[in-house]
Amino acid sequence: MGRPKEFDCEVVLERALAVFWAKGYEATSIQDLVEATGVQRQSLYDTYGDKHALYLAALRRYASQASRQVEKLTQPAGSPLGVLRDFMLATAKDAGCDGIGCMVISAAVELVASDTAVGAVVRESVDEAERAFAALIEHARAAGEVDRRVEVKPVARALVTLLWGLRTIGRTQRDPSWLQGVVKHAISGLLPSPT
Amino acid sequence: MGRPKEFDCEVVLERALAVFWAKGYEATSIQDLVEATGVQRQSLYDTYGDKHALYLAALRRYASQASRQVEKLTQPAGSPLGVLRDFMLATAKDAGCDGIGCMVISAAVELVASDTAVGAVVRESVDEAERAFAALIEHARAAGEVDRRVEVKPVARALVTLLWGLRTIGRTQRDPSWLQGVVKHAISGLLPSPT
Repeated sequence: MGRPKEFDCEVVLERALAVFWAKGYEATSIQDLVEATGVQRQSLYDTYGDKHALYLAALRRYASQASRQVEKLTQPAGSPLGVLRDFMLATAKDAGCDGIGCMVISAAVELVASDTAVGAVVRESVDEAERAFAALIEHARAAGEVDRRVEVKPVARALVTLLWGLRTIGRTQRDPSWLQGVVKHAISGLLPSPT
Repeated sequence: MGRPKEFDCEVVLERALAVFWAKGYEATSIQDLVEATGVQRQSLYDTYGDKHALYLAALRRYASQASRQVEKLTQPAGSPLGVLRDFMLATAKDAGCDGIGCMVISAAVELVASDTAVGAVVRESVDEAERAFAALIEHARAAGEVDRRVEVKPVARALVTLLWGLRTIGRTQRDPSWLQGVVKHAISGLLPSPT
């Protein structure tokens, strides 16, 4: 492994992530990264290559953390529909509060059209969310919480679309009841009770 | 009115809009704007103030064009539900194709947290869409196309959220049937037929 680096890569990456997340890719300068990480410009280049490579490493780290949250949906403890509702309400609450939103969506909006490596991370993140929602809907159907005629795949996709919508609309500083009402009505509309 | 300017302000603004729309605020340099508009740097400054003021003028122009599209929903010619479905399907189609998405959403993602003037334009755009969807749902209820128990305001908000979701997910280059399936299931779920 050679001699240890003079800085902790995990800590540096986490700090770089925070800057990119808050400012986006273009608006982040190398100087911002030097200041946030406490690592000199040349050492950053030696370790990560360039700003784009460091951004991509940070985005992958963020996406993998988000992925762990979403995977919890596939093995719901308790009512699947309750787990879904709590997850969506928590998303609505965070989206309206944190002021910086989801880094994957920022990446999609800022870079997907021109950056295939970023596009791959973003698309995988959407696919993971779709799979997790599909698994949750299957659980809810098996538990008799939703109408068996609900089509799993398109409804899972509608939930992902809604999730992205909540996270972007949330940035416009709606009052919390605005987003909560959306979650409540969307879930009961997309996942009706058995008749 | 003084003597005429040496360039057509409308044309210049439209060209600046195209650059900001495609690249975002931060990634657009004054040099990009000089090249796109064919107007010298100093003349741009003299006319618009600075890059931020020019961006804001371009964003307001875009928002007002988008607003005219959305207002058509408030006086639907033909079936209100059909008009809604066509509008959402067209959004899904455009979102998956144009590769640069909606400029208002880009502004929300890139700037809302730090820019109150941009925030005001973005929020007004969301409010307009909400009012237009609410009017359309009222028409659909009056026409007997949807269950009278549908609550207008939260469902209008859910449709706006879905619209923003379609426009952001669309950037990840889903195949068209992905987004179309979302529209179909979301509309029939949120706006059920009378029972």
